[in-house]
Amino acid sequence: MSRIGPAEPWVVREIGLPSDDAGHRQAESLFALANGHIGLRGNLDEPQPSGMPGTFLNSLYEVRDLTYPEAGFAFPERTETVVNAPNGKPINLTVGGETFDLRTGEVRRHERVLDLRAGTLTREVEWVSPGGVEVRLRSVRVVSFERPSVAAIRYSVEADAELRVDSDVAVDEAQPPPRDDPRASAVIEDAFVPVFHDRDLLVHRTRRSGITVAVAVTHLGPEGEIVTGPDRLRWTTTAHGSIAFDKIFAYGWDGLDQRDKARADRDAAARAGFDELLAEQRRYLDDFWAYADIELDGDELVQQGARFGLFHVLQAGAQAGPHPIPSKGLTGNGYDGHTLWDNESYVLPVLTYTHPACVGQALRWRHSTLDQARERARELKLDGAAFPWRTISGPECSGYWPAGTAALHINADIADAVLRYHAASGDDVFMREAGDELIAETAKLWRKVAYLDEEGVAHIAGVTGPDEYTALMDDNVFTNLMARRNLRAAALDEVSGHIAERLAVPYDERRQVHEQSAGFTRLDEWKSFADEDYPLMLHHHYLNLYRKQVVKQADLVLAMVLCGDEFTLDEKRRNFEYYEARTVRDSSLSAPVQAVLAAELGHLSLAHDYLAEAALLDLRAGGESGGDGLHIAACAGAWIAVVMGFGGLRDTGGRLSLSPRIPPRLNRLRFRLRWRGAGLSVTVTPEKVTYQVSSGGIEFRHYGDVVSLNEGEEVTFKLDPIDDRPAPPTPRPPGRAE
Amino acid sequence: MSRIGPAEPWVVREIGLPSDDAGHRQAESLFALANGHIGLRGNLDEPQPSGMPGTFLNSLYEVRDLTYPEAGFAFPERTETVVNAPNGKPINLTVGGETFDLRTGEVRRHERVLDLRAGTLTREVEWVSPGGVEVRLRSVRVVSFERPSVAAIRYSVEADAELRVDSDVAVDEAQPPPRDDPRASAVIEDAFVPVFHDRDLLVHRTRRSGITVAVAVTHLGPEGEIVTGPDRLRWTTTAHGSIAFDKIFAYGWDGLDQRDKARADRDAAARAGFDELLAEQRRYLDDFWAYADIELDGDELVQQGARFGLFHVLQAGAQAGPHPIPSKGLTGNGYDGHTLWDNESYVLPVLTYTHPACVGQALRWRHSTLDQARERARELKLDGAAFPWRTISGPECSGYWPAGTAALHINADIADAVLRYHAASGDDVFMREAGDELIAETAKLWRKVAYLDEEGVAHIAGVTGPDEYTALMDDNVFTNLMARRNLRAAALDEVSGHIAERLAVPYDERRQVHEQSAGFTRLDEWKSFADEDYPLMLHHHYLNLYRKQVVKQADLVLAMVLCGDEFTLDEKRRNFEYYEARTVRDSSLSAPVQAVLAAELGHLSLAHDYLAEAALLDLRAGGESGGDGLHIAACAGAWIAVVMGFGGLRDTGGRLSLSPRIPPRLNRLRFRLRWRGAGLSVTVTPEKVTYQVSSGGIEFRHYGDVVSLNEGEEVTFKLDPIDDRPAPPTPRPPGRAE
Repeated sequence: MSRIGPAEPWVVREIGLPSDDAGHRQAESLFALANGHIGLRGNLDEPQPSGMPGTFLNSLYEVRDLTYPEAGFAFPERTETVVNAPNGKPINLTVGGETFDLRTGEVRRHERVLDLRAGTLTREVEWVSPGGVEVRLRSVRVVSFERPSVAAIRYSVEADAELRVDSDVAVDEAQPPPRDDPRASAVIEDAFVPVFHDRDLLVHRTRRSGITVAVAVTHLGPEGEIVTGPDRLRWTTTAHGSIAFDKIFAYGWDGLDQRDKARADRDAAARAGFDELLAEQRRYLDDFWAYADIELDGDELVQQGARFGLFHVLQAGAQAGPHPIPSKGLTGNGYDGHTLWDNESYVLPVLTYTHPACVGQALRWRHSTLDQARERARELKLDGAAFPWRTISGPECSGYWPAGTAALHINADIADAVLRYHAASGDDVFMREAGDELIAETAKLWRKVAYLDEEGVAHIAGVTGPDEYTALMDDNVFTNLMARRNLRAAALDEVSGHIAERLAVPYDERRQVHEQSAGFTRLDEWKSFADEDYPLMLHHHYLNLYRKQVVKQADLVLAMVLCGDEFTLDEKRRNFEYYEARTVRDSSLSAPVQAVLAAELGHLSLAHDYLAEAALLDLRAGGESGGDGLHIAACAGAWIAVVMGFGGLRDTGGRLSLSPRIPPRLNRLRFRLRWRGAGLSVTVTPEKVTYQVSSGGIEFRHYGDVVSLNEGEEVTFKLDPIDDRPAPPTPRPPGRAE
Repeated sequence: MSRIGPAEPWVVREIGLPSDDAGHRQAESLFALANGHIGLRGNLDEPQPSGMPGTFLNSLYEVRDLTYPEAGFAFPERTETVVNAPNGKPINLTVGGETFDLRTGEVRRHERVLDLRAGTLTREVEWVSPGGVEVRLRSVRVVSFERPSVAAIRYSVEADAELRVDSDVAVDEAQPPPRDDPRASAVIEDAFVPVFHDRDLLVHRTRRSGITVAVAVTHLGPEGEIVTGPDRLRWTTTAHGSIAFDKIFAYGWDGLDQRDKARADRDAAARAGFDELLAEQRRYLDDFWAYADIELDGDELVQQGARFGLFHVLQAGAQAGPHPIPSKGLTGNGYDGHTLWDNESYVLPVLTYTHPACVGQALRWRHSTLDQARERARELKLDGAAFPWRTISGPECSGYWPAGTAALHINADIADAVLRYHAASGDDVFMREAGDELIAETAKLWRKVAYLDEEGVAHIAGVTGPDEYTALMDDNVFTNLMARRNLRAAALDEVSGHIAERLAVPYDERRQVHEQSAGFTRLDEWKSFADEDYPLMLHHHYLNLYRKQVVKQADLVLAMVLCGDEFTLDEKRRNFEYYEARTVRDSSLSAPVQAVLAAELGHLSLAHDYLAEAALLDLRAGGESGGDGLHIAACAGAWIAVVMGFGGLRDTGGRLSLSPRIPPRLNRLRFRLRWRGAGLSVTVTPEKVTYQVSSGGIEFRHYGDVVSLNEGEEVTFKLDPIDDRPAPPTPRPPGRAE
């Protein structure tokens, strides 16, 4: 849809203009700039053409009622939906009386560049108006990592004509109609009531959730006229030949001093100036890449996709601060802007090893919602905390409980993220203030929900695991193993310890494979794969999906990745082969996990394929993947596939282990990570691996052997050649082999 | 709530007036008159006080959109809801300028009598107005069984004052707000647009479903003035001292000639006159009771309740004709006026043996919806027909699929009803025209949905059985055994025959009981019974209910009743004991079935208790049971408990078997039934049973021995004494023992 140019190492370049609305939506997501606190979709400077407007402030949401055809006890009655905030981006241009609109006239050149090291979106346009005026336009947009509430645009235009710029802050922009897809967002129209307006500031409040938001703006450059009203602030300037200015705007919506905060942040940014904002941005990203970059010599496309993904993971998490990290980051309104389990299970692991400061914050956000999770547990007649399947501010917002509330594993996913973060960071203060309580409260739920049968085996019945093509199953292996970890870490009492050790791990003796959940391998097979059937959930009733052996996304395979020491190598091989044939990857969460286990089992080219699927999912999508926001977990998935897959990183029990290997199509592979303040870089070639410590001291295992390195040291090990095992001989689902 | 007087054999008498809205709602249901085609709730003659208005025409419904917080593929997007039709009941009275309103003045006497042999509701009132005028009012209401579209009211009033009667047809009456209960109906306000009005007729059309309804009215008696408008027709008469008249009204809403039909039916009824309507009604009911009555000497309360139930079963089914029989009959709008599986599994069996003519009609209605069921099967990627869990005109209207679409057993329930009707009636024409196709199309679904494992065992996975406190289970015994019967009857081909014989019947070897569904007996026990927790579904999330061994309603026990020859007596005993301890009877469908198996196993007093529960559920409810319509299946349940329970009637394989017994608290028990045109009466005492044939010849089994009797013959057998076995020693759920 978007015309993304050939792969370049550090930039993503769009050549030409999207040809339709879907293409615009896709490009707006790809070119979104965000810092975790605020996010600007990559809309053009001028309001039209546009796919979907989008200015997102983390946790600026509206409340909506949920109504059910047939409700049940404790079905959530309200949900939260991210709203499109007052938008500081629009810059309208008039050239000799003609509106600058790329749907008219002739577009001679249109190029947008997302620079992953500069942290900027640059746009260059050459356009001839219907009246024949040649126009050159250039803009640079930045959302500051250092100044969480600040965004800025440098805008310049040249043409041999009278030029007029109307630069706006726009409120309640028109929204496209909602898509007919359960993963899409509801549309919130007319979200705001005006509270206050001044020549430099608009203040609004959401109607039901009552959140006040202030946006302060200034224009640095020529003199301009300002017209302001309740729902618009417009700065106008005119000139002949050229106009250039910097637009700097800042938001306030947390706490009680929104106006003062927005104005102060804007003023500080304006005093620093646009060039300094760029310089800060570059320094911030240099620091990030120093510990996060991965290099993949030999696959330029995936190289670009992996960096693009890491950049967006950072954009989603960096300054999320006291708020959650939504599944779409701040790039779109998909999933209503909710955070789901992929935050803890996909995004936080990557940030734990690359940018750990924001992981503690993200988990403190979870902790801040603990009272709501306790209340939900009470409502469900459970103990401890029952964290929501999807939410913005803490309440359960899931409207289909078999694939929502029933996915109790969210509790264990949070505990696992806490354990990982603590092991990798050594942040004991966090544990005392939040982590220990999170682990204890999540564990209490498992102690209550599990029961012992008369043979002394513990069971967890009627829950849904990661695979959403089955639901309400007994003894989901992933859930049980993660609950075991959660219970062990909490060490609540003797009973919970007893349960932890005795939780069932269903195994099919006949087929010699684990059952994803009890009885799964005895279900009917899914026989009717057809290309046009994907994703299956949009073409088949759950009745049909749930009762068959068809797997939406890695579930048992994820258990084998995160709880690898609970399986023998032979079990992993047999299980992987069995589930490969039945996994249709209708979720973007699947490929990264399959990549990791494929790499562990020596299916290196297959792992490479799955890495590519994750890395290119949104960036080079065939369809409109990511139009309503990028798949941030899939963005994280590229790192997971490389570092956990080819790097063999495992952290079970708080110990760092690496088992590097390289797939045939790569010449050299390098990744970096942080571990308790130390920085480690790992360079892998077919023959050897070199570990270099840039700062601090580190101890880890290399293929099981302990390695200790001090700051500045490096060590090289020869690698035994690993035969690239072909993909398992069982056929993968037709249409899902590639 | 309603002040129902002491039990009388053939009437239900209310003494005094309900004291609140809930009491009015309850009484309006109890005193509803209906014939299956039209139904009038037992509202007072004057519009107020009132609980809920209700004039129901079978299959006069409006369409509503169903919206889901998170929709899935093939979730129904529309539903149907019964609407309150233009109401011919209201008669306003003014006495010396004062409105006759029983909430004012002094009510000296208020009595309503539902006469189960006359088929009338009679009301007698003595009231003193606030101004001191003494008023005597009497009304008799009838909904004609012989004239399906006709209702009539005989009204007389006496007082020493100027009297004024305004007799209305009222459209779009105000509705009470909806109750917060998933079993309640949606409220359809402003359902009608006016089409036409004349001095004797109103014609309206529903807004979305576009159903035209005409009501024609006439008043026989004194002269009156008529005022009519789009939404009201009012006949007014005045006199001093007394007024008496008959109001006769008729509806037309089927076919294209609604006006002519309503007028013609009204005119024919008016020509016959009110007395003749009463005489017809009495003849119709005499015929009914001759083959349907049950006599229970020694329990006057249950005697009354059982006859009350049978009367309402007849009222629900008699003239349902080309339309379905809703779960609430035409007594209220509960369940949105939908028909569910209890029609085929509870109501039709009773009518099959008591009033078979309307069973063929009811099953022909199912047949008329076959194309919709085929389309639904296609949508679900199944074969044959997938009949809807709940509907009025045929489409699936279930908005919670785990306890709706997943309950595939509805298909087998329909097939079973066809087989029973054919066996009992010998109606081969019906089979050729509808029955054979129903059996074949329902069976095709089972052939598709069942699969064979590598051991050659057939399974049906991911379905919901009768017990709605579990869902999406594998190999529900009831479903599998009923599917087996369906497949055997259809005899589609070798494959389906193979599947039928090999369908799994899960059995727990350790506990020596059948599993309601695979794995059920290994689930956690429900430990926290508390009185205030019932019904559990209104106090516990399904997450909690589904994962535990708590049973809403007879499920495996129903399988043992309907498919008794699939179980040994020992299995039945052990299973019954096991499931008694876990069945909370939160559905009115439970007690009748438990009564039958309890009686079979010799728990005669327990069976009597369950019979009483079914017979008295709505009639002598502690709470507001039945306020939005009677539980017609529970009404049928009294007959089921008596005839299948104490009579031991079984009809497996199309053979009639009886094994009569009598519980200790009864002196004598008599029931009647029809079998292939013959009429059989069965009289049971503790010592003996006497079979008498009133018409036709009949062959049946008495405790396994073949008995053949011709018209007018009778035979008496001594009965071996049956020890009344106490209830199973396992405790029944606390709060659910009585």
